[in-house]
Amino acid sequence: MGIVIFDISTSLDGYITAAHQTAEVPMGPGGDAVHDWAFGSDEANATYLQTAGASTGAVICGRTTYDTSLPWWEANGPTGEQRKPVIVLTHRAPADAPSGGVYTFVTGGLQAALDAAREAAGDADVTIMGGADIGRQFLTAGVVDELSLHVAPLLFGGGTRLFGDLTDHVKLTLVDCLPTPTAIHLRYRT
Amino acid sequence: MGIVIFDISTSLDGYITAAHQTAEVPMGPGGDAVHDWAFGSDEANATYLQTAGASTGAVICGRTTYDTSLPWWEANGPTGEQRKPVIVLTHRAPADAPSGGVYTFVTGGLQAALDAAREAAGDADVTIMGGADIGRQFLTAGVVDELSLHVAPLLFGGGTRLFGDLTDHVKLTLVDCLPTPTAIHLRYRT
Repeated sequence: MGIVIFDISTSLDGYITAAHQTAEVPMGPGGDAVHDWAFGSDEANATYLQTAGASTGAVICGRTTYDTSLPWWEANGPTGEQRKPVIVLTHRAPADAPSGGVYTFVTGGLQAALDAAREAAGDADVTIMGGADIGRQFLTAGVVDELSLHVAPLLFGGGTRLFGDLTDHVKLTLVDCLPTPTAIHLRYRT
Repeated sequence: MGIVIFDISTSLDGYITAAHQTAEVPMGPGGDAVHDWAFGSDEANATYLQTAGASTGAVICGRTTYDTSLPWWEANGPTGEQRKPVIVLTHRAPADAPSGGVYTFVTGGLQAALDAAREAAGDADVTIMGGADIGRQFLTAGVVDELSLHVAPLLFGGGTRLFGDLTDHVKLTLVDCLPTPTAIHLRYRT
């Protein structure tokens, strides 16, 4: 069985979106810059993305992440031509999911989503892509093996916080650190 | 003239102290762990600390940082035997500063502290050691050339936040990244 990874891009000051989000600008004005690393021409980032996608067996995301990302993901999902299955944790499945899409909508909660993702992933890893809230819920439930952060060289000063309140300290172990001009890729074991 | 560096240790979730601070436990229970990198036996960290100290001409800190650090700093200050001058930004000078200490108490505000530090530093760098509030004030005033963070592999989930609200996004340039087991040392040009 693979491991469970919570994987997300963040500003250096810990925001996964900029402030002043709207339905039209779901990342907040300027907030897309947190994902620049994934769309640029830098070879280290392209290789990183490709490698991470290859070791992923299935992806879990929340409904907001699905809704806001679908215009880019389209039917193939976040891993593009690799077409890894995406489990969308939601209260209600959408009526208009793309035909031939990689998406499965799970309404039974966290554990049901994890079970579905593990089954879909087989021996490969399960990657939780966010949002922050869902990542934190999995983290708090103790099922996340690895935290994979892409830290953009930006201070947003406001927006959606990646980390919220926790009752206990969490001690992590750094297992990888790859700096690039548009993001530092950090992997921590929980 | 050297550059102005805001240099501070933080948890991965952006707290420079843990929650539940008291006068007796100014870093909050468990919060000292954010500074473990500076006190451990790891050679990379010891070298890093030594090099940073050597390029520093003067240090600026706030009164709380001074008060809580004095038991460790003693008369020599944060650079130890290097005895670099420390400018303490305060509303009122303490009556009981250590004799033969490296400390100068400045009550004239941010610019007066910076002027005093620059004069004391000569051609070397000025390092702002915090607290977070003072670092942010210098950052917002646009006088910080470099942000030097020591990111401990910890989630505190609460405490004193390093970065607060900002009105504008700040785009930084990564200039150095040194991962160690107890902290990742990051340097960004503003």
